[in-house]
Amino acid sequence: MHKVSVDLKNIGYDIIIEKDFSGTLRDFLVTKRFSSKVLIISDTHVADLYGGEVLQCVEFAGMQGEIFAVDAGESAKSLAVAEKLYTKAISLGLDRNSLVIALGGGVVGDLAGFIAATFLRGVPFIQIPTSLLAQVDSSVGGKVAINHQLGKNLIGAFYQPKIVAISLDTLTTLPPREIYTGLAEVIKYGIICDKEFFDYLATSADKILQLDGVAMEKIISRSCEIKAAVVSEDEKETGRRIILNFGHTIAHAIENATGYTRYNHGEAVAIGMYGAALLSYYSKLITKETVKRIKDIIEKFNLPTKAQGCTAEQLFDLLLRDKKVISGKVQWVLLKDIGEVFVNKDVEEALVQLVLNEITV
Amino acid sequence: MHKVSVDLKNIGYDIIIEKDFSGTLRDFLVTKRFSSKVLIISDTHVADLYGGEVLQCVEFAGMQGEIFAVDAGESAKSLAVAEKLYTKAISLGLDRNSLVIALGGGVVGDLAGFIAATFLRGVPFIQIPTSLLAQVDSSVGGKVAINHQLGKNLIGAFYQPKIVAISLDTLTTLPPREIYTGLAEVIKYGIICDKEFFDYLATSADKILQLDGVAMEKIISRSCEIKAAVVSEDEKETGRRIILNFGHTIAHAIENATGYTRYNHGEAVAIGMYGAALLSYYSKLITKETVKRIKDIIEKFNLPTKAQGCTAEQLFDLLLRDKKVISGKVQWVLLKDIGEVFVNKDVEEALVQLVLNEITV
Repeated sequence: MHKVSVDLKNIGYDIIIEKDFSGTLRDFLVTKRFSSKVLIISDTHVADLYGGEVLQCVEFAGMQGEIFAVDAGESAKSLAVAEKLYTKAISLGLDRNSLVIALGGGVVGDLAGFIAATFLRGVPFIQIPTSLLAQVDSSVGGKVAINHQLGKNLIGAFYQPKIVAISLDTLTTLPPREIYTGLAEVIKYGIICDKEFFDYLATSADKILQLDGVAMEKIISRSCEIKAAVVSEDEKETGRRIILNFGHTIAHAIENATGYTRYNHGEAVAIGMYGAALLSYYSKLITKETVKRIKDIIEKFNLPTKAQGCTAEQLFDLLLRDKKVISGKVQWVLLKDIGEVFVNKDVEEALVQLVLNEITV
Repeated sequence: MHKVSVDLKNIGYDIIIEKDFSGTLRDFLVTKRFSSKVLIISDTHVADLYGGEVLQCVEFAGMQGEIFAVDAGESAKSLAVAEKLYTKAISLGLDRNSLVIALGGGVVGDLAGFIAATFLRGVPFIQIPTSLLAQVDSSVGGKVAINHQLGKNLIGAFYQPKIVAISLDTLTTLPPREIYTGLAEVIKYGIICDKEFFDYLATSADKILQLDGVAMEKIISRSCEIKAAVVSEDEKETGRRIILNFGHTIAHAIENATGYTRYNHGEAVAIGMYGAALLSYYSKLITKETVKRIKDIIEKFNLPTKAQGCTAEQLFDLLLRDKKVISGKVQWVLLKDIGEVFVNKDVEEALVQLVLNEITV
């Protein structure tokens, strides 16, 4: 069992990484005094696998839980589904001290977190992320959101959970591609903050791909530590937090250009990280050798470095519509070395074009 | 001109009370560096009266403003209207540094504030409240919300404006009933926090009802000061802030029981304050004379003390569905004296029934 503490100005909370979440969840529910009704938001797939276990923990603590399972997939992050969840929360009689539990991957965490952030102006919630991507990324840091027809995550809030309970066991029910997508974000943490961790990933790739327990606990814990440290410095993303966006500027454009279907998030991030490494190389910041090291680990984890089904021109246009564009300037996160990044708002367009040509097939 | 500062943990802002808001608004927009596009949310009625003036200020500061005017009235505080506003914000190309301006009464402030709180996880917004009720109450303190079919303000957030710009001039275009509804909240501030202010209201009632400039600046400023002080102590309503709920427990039940049409908010609060005073009297906390002083000022300001069109039984059932009910307990704000209130979760049901019988016709 490993504990990572997230220290924020007004509030702090723990991320617990262990084999199975039940013990932690039971202890937490018994210790804290929430109102009796609990709304568990999940998707149909995850609810079947782990819903019963969560309900048992809730009942063990003398509370009554009800599961609302949305359809699996991004379409659940809509205002229409949110409205149904508000209706459910009201009909269950949740009050301001009632708990919302997010049980699932990133979609469920984002959606449930948004409901918790906005129902009655905010009720307590906890995250039980069941995908590797959610465990190392979306469940940590308090970003919650739903989608608008015109773009992803355009409606949301910064809202922190009371605890994040991570079970390594849930990884065993994930398809391999879902593991690889999470590993893209793990690689990112190494690149932006921790060269030693990056080296560990390169040398332990085989163990990681076999989901070795020790290796997985280590990479999830270290990823959460890095994200927690960055978020603690900058909860509302007004400064340093943007380094977490490494690889994501291009990734968002790729996801958008390919209709959010061809690539999953981690795959798009993998291509985006390779692109950002290339852009750093063309900006004379890093060597070709460093670019190659990044490309190697991406490929080792069965992730792509080139985007199919979209053109460089498409991606270029989409870059300017990123949420983090300020007054028309793309905020590029670039590399000085593995483990060291910075933000550059004045990258030459010609270099960006060069990179986009290189990463599109 | 009078300035009230709201000091919160992470952020502070000013409430400016003056004859006309233009100078303050222009200075603020020129000094701060927001992105060029500004979304002004108003209603059709207020947009006609003051939209042009706000647009001029925005253009003076070198920015481009666009007004989105919703239908006047509570129906605008819906998820459907919110969705249209998100679409507008996206199509205008607002970024995280773009400003949302709320120009209107409480409905517009709540709605615009909710959009600002949730669009791109939060963009800066300012309040230009044009009704007395919004000036002394809803524009101060950061509570923003929209309604759900099953209840008012059930979806919302705590989200603070960058500035609140209050023009006394806007009061002259309000119908008298809109002035009275605001005065109910003004009376409340005297009752909960400031006996001297309560005495001033009683002795200056005639001037106030004539909208005398000096008197209005004084009562708006003092109301904002009291609300700001309470909110500064307890931004997220976990403790002392609940005293602002004085009179509101019964008021919400009355509004709900009468379909939000027979009484406006201040009228319901007036009846609720009289009810809370009676409940304090029956709880042997205050004298009959104190109850009479409260009743007198309420009536002086042309506000009701008895509810028509609903029964005591209806109100009693609705009390338990208030947002501030925790684990089935109504949190009553009761009086020890004018200027001194406290919270009591264990009021005898029989006394509550007695009061509800007395305030229903």
